[in-house]
Amino acid sequence: MQQSLTFQTPGRSTLDITAEVARVVADAGIDAGLCHVFVRHTSASLMICENADPDVRDDLERWLARAVVDGDPMFRHDTEGPDDMAAHVRSILTGMDLTIPVTGGALNLGTWQGVYLYEHRSAPHQREVVVTLSRAG
Amino acid sequence: MQQSLTFQTPGRSTLDITAEVARVVADAGIDAGLCHVFVRHTSASLMICENADPDVRDDLERWLARAVVDGDPMFRHDTEGPDDMAAHVRSILTGMDLTIPVTGGALNLGTWQGVYLYEHRSAPHQREVVVTLSRAG
Amino acid sequence: MQQSLTFQTPGRSTLDITAEVARVVADAGIDAGLCHVFVRHTSASLMICENADPDVRDDLERWLARAVVDGDPMFRHDTEGPDDMAAHVRSILTGMDLTIPVTGGALNLGTWQGVYLYEHRSAPHQREVVVTLSRAG
Repeated sequence: MQQSLTFQTPGRSTLDITAEVARVVADAGIDAGLCHVFVRHTSASLMICENADPDVRDDLERWLARAVVDGDPMFRHDTEGPDDMAAHVRSILTGMDLTIPVTGGALNLGTWQGVYLYEHRSAPHQREVVVTLSRAG
Repeated sequence: MQQSLTFQTPGRSTLDITAEVARVVADAGIDAGLCHVFVRHTSASLMICENADPDVRDDLERWLARAVVDGDPMFRHDTEGPDDMAAHVRSILTGMDLTIPVTGGALNLGTWQGVYLYEHRSAPHQREVVVTLSRAG
Repeated sequence: MQQSLTFQTPGRSTLDITAEVARVVADAGIDAGLCHVFVRHTSASLMICENADPDVRDDLERWLARAVVDGDPMFRHDTEGPDDMAAHVRSILTGMDLTIPVTGGALNLGTWQGVYLYEHRSAPHQREVVVTLSRAG
């Protein structure tokens, strides 16, 4: 009913983790309920995003990179590099937890929805994601 | 304990769905717990917003329209029009899932909180929202 | 399994409420599950943020203050002052609800994750936060 998943990221990028989350749901054997996904970090996030056209995630990355500028002279927290503070802001804007309905024993996502782990740091990182299932009713 | 609701939107706008969500809570007959609301799309979102002055949602719309510009030349994903990619970014920033406490058998919202479905596409759309109830404890 | 907490804020600032939320989790005595945290207001928010270097929250505040300008002439909703509408936008961007996994009877936060109540209004406010626990499975 609760599993911890570990992902190795190649640095700033989005990673489709829908299949890994769906496997935890299948293992749990719950018919109707909720699937909660949580990333135990403050410079990576979780989001639901369009899953058909990779341009969507590329465009989102460009939008975020312009809205939250790496090395912004306003940022004082830069001990780990120019992407450090930007990664915190990006994580807060896109969110560190997600809850998805479970219906008929499976994730009840829309056709074009995928679950993505978003690495906001430039360097590769190991990221831990906790998936928890709870029954409706 | 889980119901799917369908809403017809008139194009970009916010729709107060508090009463519809509250009705699912009343039907479920749970005293204390959680009410999860999820939109099965990537270009519409769910948010809690001030429910007394419509200017708040108008101001929010103006802020978002300036922050995420329709037809931004940086966006490559534009097959469905200039509002397509902006709708994805806006949905991610405002979020596609919400969880609200249930107390005494009802949604435990603050006095000024309403639950809104936010349509980010310019054209009218049919949007599906899944509401799931789970008991505390 | 559900408790309401009240916090007095000194005006715009972040308040670490991790210990208060953790106490509700300890009281509930649930081994594995979910801890949901909800703020019953539309001009304060809840977020998970880096908890080691206060510069992170200062930088975030500066970023938000520049992205969502108090007294923006575009805003019409200003009855309670120039920070009124900005507080609503900031709350929606950073979110009013959070769900955190409970593992081994405790909040399963990462080492650098803290739970913060973010007051977006300039004046001191009393804010109510509802914490709800639900069991996994």
